[in-house]
Amino acid sequence: MAAEIVNPPSDSDVPTEQKAGAEPLDAFEPAFALHRGGKMAVQATVPVRDRDDLSLAYTPGVAKVCSAIAEQPDLVHDYTWKSSVVAVVTDGTAVLGLGDIGPEASLPVMEGKAILFKQFGGVDAVPIALACTDADEIVDTVVRLAPSFGGVNLEDISAPRCFEVERKLQERLDIPVFHDDQHGTAIVTLAALRNAARLSGRSLGELRAVISGAGAAGVAIARMLVGAGIGDVAVTDRKGVVSADRDDLTEVKRELASFTNKAGLSGSLEAALDGADVFIGVSGGTVPEPAVASMAEGAFVFAMANPNPEVHPEIARKYAAVVATGRSDFPNQINNVLAFPGIFAGALQVRASRITEGMKLAAAEALAGVVGDDLAADYVIPSPFDERVAPAVTAAVAAAARAEGVARR
Amino acid sequence: MAAEIVNPPSDSDVPTEQKAGAEPLDAFEPAFALHRGGKMAVQATVPVRDRDDLSLAYTPGVAKVCSAIAEQPDLVHDYTWKSSVVAVVTDGTAVLGLGDIGPEASLPVMEGKAILFKQFGGVDAVPIALACTDADEIVDTVVRLAPSFGGVNLEDISAPRCFEVERKLQERLDIPVFHDDQHGTAIVTLAALRNAARLSGRSLGELRAVISGAGAAGVAIARMLVGAGIGDVAVTDRKGVVSADRDDLTEVKRELASFTNKAGLSGSLEAALDGADVFIGVSGGTVPEPAVASMAEGAFVFAMANPNPEVHPEIARKYAAVVATGRSDFPNQINNVLAFPGIFAGALQVRASRITEGMKLAAAEALAGVVGDDLAADYVIPSPFDERVAPAVTAAVAAAARAEGVARR
Repeated sequence: MAAEIVNPPSDSDVPTEQKAGAEPLDAFEPAFALHRGGKMAVQATVPVRDRDDLSLAYTPGVAKVCSAIAEQPDLVHDYTWKSSVVAVVTDGTAVLGLGDIGPEASLPVMEGKAILFKQFGGVDAVPIALACTDADEIVDTVVRLAPSFGGVNLEDISAPRCFEVERKLQERLDIPVFHDDQHGTAIVTLAALRNAARLSGRSLGELRAVISGAGAAGVAIARMLVGAGIGDVAVTDRKGVVSADRDDLTEVKRELASFTNKAGLSGSLEAALDGADVFIGVSGGTVPEPAVASMAEGAFVFAMANPNPEVHPEIARKYAAVVATGRSDFPNQINNVLAFPGIFAGALQVRASRITEGMKLAAAEALAGVVGDDLAADYVIPSPFDERVAPAVTAAVAAAARAEGVARR
Repeated sequence: MAAEIVNPPSDSDVPTEQKAGAEPLDAFEPAFALHRGGKMAVQATVPVRDRDDLSLAYTPGVAKVCSAIAEQPDLVHDYTWKSSVVAVVTDGTAVLGLGDIGPEASLPVMEGKAILFKQFGGVDAVPIALACTDADEIVDTVVRLAPSFGGVNLEDISAPRCFEVERKLQERLDIPVFHDDQHGTAIVTLAALRNAARLSGRSLGELRAVISGAGAAGVAIARMLVGAGIGDVAVTDRKGVVSADRDDLTEVKRELASFTNKAGLSGSLEAALDGADVFIGVSGGTVPEPAVASMAEGAFVFAMANPNPEVHPEIARKYAAVVATGRSDFPNQINNVLAFPGIFAGALQVRASRITEGMKLAAAEALAGVVGDDLAADYVIPSPFDERVAPAVTAAVAAAARAEGVARR
């Protein structure tokens, strides 16, 4: 999926007919026609045609299965869909580029996420859009739902609450909890960056990166890059570099400042980009062209806001060696769908109790590896439709889970 | 569905191999083999094959749909699956005849319920087994989930908490909330009773009924029979008739005593059955044969415990004119699947804000009506597999919703 930094649709995107309420949207907008009635359904995977079927799928046969699970709780993983179904959980506060639109309005995205899980990873998923935004209420609610699910994908929950929610759920649950806006984006970004580095004959440790945007994606990308051994990375928010000398930082940003920015930069994004090797945009807005021009020779520009990247590819390619965006109509699309299906498929396959840093790094490696010898400036990341991706990521994540001792199957 | 009074499986039902842990259950028990991996899955109802598909089902097309819903919240009912999907919610405290086995062990029943919703009513449903049993925690949790669902089917939550949970959810939500163990059982029972009365040329008002069991089903059946105009009904619990003179009654039973038992009976079930026209068993246990023999001429015996009815049909038919059970291998199966799929299908079809008494009575009428001129002593209720049932119930419930002004579509 395109990284979830999506610019709000302009007024011209919304047909005036909608405002008048006179004509159905569907006739004018294929997206609306497609969404009519929703995008998903459930289905039985066992027959329920007659009495005999029912006596196995329901009473009395089902009572034996319930009884067995009551006696041996682990059997729930063998005889229900629990260990194969993921809850896609949101509170609707950070949906695409639309921001805080609430749970109902977020449902089309959550349904979309669910069908992508199924289509790309074979993972069943259910949209759970919640009517609460307090972090502890979200946590308590998901903990209470947890018996029904094998994993939790947090989606479109705004920073900084998303960090607390994910952390607390990971503490309290023994199933994988993963905020895709953070880690999915980070994994795909790392994969693309590794390949860009490989193409240019450099190691990650030689690169200085600047990330614009200190929300869910920016913080997670920074963490992942540092964990992967990047030379240096600085993150900027609206006020500039998140640097240790600032006195206006949230707890999350203070922590961020503590493990990033070895160069001790402070001030504007533009100043930070002077001589930088990598720009990663997860903020929206626009980076002035001179700042892009001031980057180091052979730079990489990954501008992921959708549909308006922080640096338009046409401009970026004047200066950069490798250009990536979140858009499907340019080369090198940084699309989360390259990661989350295989990550959960792999974790669920071995019933991992959590998704560890090692599993995430393994996913990024596997993703980068799919490109193989076809590596080129306009091909540092596979296409979302490359059928080799999900199996490779799934296998790598499952193996990493076993290696780290978090697999239970 | 068999009414959810299910006797616990005996030890002989559980293969000794399970206890040894040596052999997989599946080879010995078809129910286990069928349940392996669970009984349900999700599916996309729109294509997700390529970039163009994704640009409609996901970004950027989906952003327009989200934006439209944010601006006009009612559109959620047109462009998501919300208004067609039901949450099947339990806390695992009253599962079949197994009692309080907890949420994970309840999942096979909840999955079964979900696939029956889909198979019989075309209604999508998702199992939500909760890790909390406090009534207010259940209520708060379901309220927070509610943006994602078009209705809530409460299942296997023990009395008396189930009454409070249902009531509070109905107060706080504007989507249908329906505890099937209460009302589904009551509706099907009423339908069978209406037909039995019709067969014998009597009206409900001429009948005195005794219900054994003052849990979810017993209380709801009593309420429904009184609402439908039964001559008299008394309910018994383990201590005998729930009568106003008792000083050991819960609040629910005190209320029950206040609107039942016009005859002022007190004492044992056996005594209450002397001269009674109708026995309805939703308690389990066994009614002594002499008590059945003491019932009035042309009595009706509906003994719904499963697999061991409170009165075995072979015994009942020595004395009764019409015999019904919860079992599929005897005539006149009182099976909740005759009701809940069509009830929700009808309610969802017109986006009813709740399921009213009128809608329930209409469902019972429609159900009874399917039998039509084929009415006979061994055919007072349709087969669950009679394809006329769900459409008839759906249409009747939808019409009743409109008539009562609770329809919003």
